[in-house]
Amino acid sequence: MTLFAAADAIGLATFSISGLLMGMRKGLDLLGILITAFLTALGGGVIRDVIVGRTPLVFEQSATLLYVIAGILLALLLRLHAKERPERYAIFILMDSIGLVAFALTGALVGIESGFNLFGVMLLSFVTAVGGGMLRDMMLGDIPIVLTSDFYGTIALLVAFLIYLCERMGCLGSWTLFLVGVSALILRLVAYRRNWHLPKLGEKP
Amino acid sequence: MTLFAAADAIGLATFSISGLLMGMRKGLDLLGILITAFLTALGGGVIRDVIVGRTPLVFEQSATLLYVIAGILLALLLRLHAKERPERYAIFILMDSIGLVAFALTGALVGIESGFNLFGVMLLSFVTAVGGGMLRDMMLGDIPIVLTSDFYGTIALLVAFLIYLCERMGCLGSWTLFLVGVSALILRLVAYRRNWHLPKLGEKP
Amino acid sequence: MTLFAAADAIGLATFSISGLLMGMRKGLDLLGILITAFLTALGGGVIRDVIVGRTPLVFEQSATLLYVIAGILLALLLRLHAKERPERYAIFILMDSIGLVAFALTGALVGIESGFNLFGVMLLSFVTAVGGGMLRDMMLGDIPIVLTSDFYGTIALLVAFLIYLCERMGCLGSWTLFLVGVSALILRLVAYRRNWHLPKLGEKP
Repeated sequence: MTLFAAADAIGLATFSISGLLMGMRKGLDLLGILITAFLTALGGGVIRDVIVGRTPLVFEQSATLLYVIAGILLALLLRLHAKERPERYAIFILMDSIGLVAFALTGALVGIESGFNLFGVMLLSFVTAVGGGMLRDMMLGDIPIVLTSDFYGTIALLVAFLIYLCERMGCLGSWTLFLVGVSALILRLVAYRRNWHLPKLGEKP
Repeated sequence: MTLFAAADAIGLATFSISGLLMGMRKGLDLLGILITAFLTALGGGVIRDVIVGRTPLVFEQSATLLYVIAGILLALLLRLHAKERPERYAIFILMDSIGLVAFALTGALVGIESGFNLFGVMLLSFVTAVGGGMLRDMMLGDIPIVLTSDFYGTIALLVAFLIYLCERMGCLGSWTLFLVGVSALILRLVAYRRNWHLPKLGEKP
Repeated sequence: MTLFAAADAIGLATFSISGLLMGMRKGLDLLGILITAFLTALGGGVIRDVIVGRTPLVFEQSATLLYVIAGILLALLLRLHAKERPERYAIFILMDSIGLVAFALTGALVGIESGFNLFGVMLLSFVTAVGGGMLRDMMLGDIPIVLTSDFYGTIALLVAFLIYLCERMGCLGSWTLFLVGVSALILRLVAYRRNWHLPKLGEKP
């Protein structure tokens, strides 16, 4: 479980950095940049908690915030915004992928705990993992990037599907969680490296 | 009540088709298109359930999903996206109008059940009927179409007003529901055919 | 407490006017304009109530609506939409600032009541005060103005911080509420008059 908490923390820090950079690029002021950073990191989890009807965890557990703030400070210290496309750094991709998988796992587990059906578990996993980024893009006037390209949101859906399957087959435990997580992480990294994209049905061939 | 369930199913299928077509037009990838289709069909009901504080029905009742999936499959089978403006087909308009009225009725009934005042009942009816489409438009970077033209969202408000009135006068039952629903459906179809629009106050005459 | 209710009513009326004017400028129809006015005035409070898991107050207490409707009627009677930038009138700025502070205070108090940590209290205060305006801007396809310029949302965060501090120090009462409110109001008016802005980190110097 310590490993899981570490993955979650990495996700919070990385997502806040990606929000921070996007906010800076859009010419927001200091408040707007911070709001965007926090929203990107925490938005998915808050929507998830509101959907299942519990108080958003982050309003009661302050620890979560430390990782977000650590991410923001790190980005400012390294002056990432003065660099070109820091989101393309290998280390950033790795950390972002770890966050994607950790958030997807949390969302799927909360969905199972709440007695949701397969659809509910998949949606909750998706929202937890990419909801913050989608809110950020919508707020800044862009079509959410996760809807247009890349093999990213699909990972969260696959994770949720596998977790739901494990649960149904009565083999959900630390080991299956670990296995699903690592497989999903590898899949995401391969997809990124090979530049996989889902097809676009609307275009004429 | 079987009639009501049928109207609801028609609405789910039609709304998912309209989401699917919009997603294709915007150049989304397969995941984005499916998310848009599901969001258009289910978004309004999920917001409604979150507002009244209950678990979104669709996460527990899988039947709902079948109609959404049926809509998506139908659209793909008929290759609607290769046709010009399938949203203008008479059959599509009819089915969409049935969905509008069915969703508005459900929203109004949930509002009354939750003990809301007239405003709450009208808002819940409006959100249930057009909330999915509004989320879709906002997500894809457009001003929600329901805010700018046509005589569409107004139908949901009228339905809610009448249902609230019936309830106050103690005559809410299958027959009044049926009567309100059919009247609203006819009004919507007349409004569409005659191209009714609400006035725009902001423009100079 | 009567003073507080008055400040709240002023906020509801002023926020609805600002929504109304924005809706008119964007070429919405009558329904769209009214939805925008109601959303701007009530959206923040509804999000707040959904987050803390209670039924949105406005669906049970009809009094709130009277102030929103009064604002709309006033704007139409004075034909504000035919004037140039009525949002710059001194009286409008004053009333809007009173609303900002009143909403921020309410949000902070609800957060404290719900046992939130400092972050939760600040976020709830921020959402209550500026959430309606942010939703309005997002719906109409703009980047929320509160994220890009002015010294506005920061006021809500400061109010929440001070209220949380008071509560921790055991001195939260009518007098401290009044003192925080008046100080925040003065700060907002000074910031407006002197044209204060937060820095933008992303721009090259």
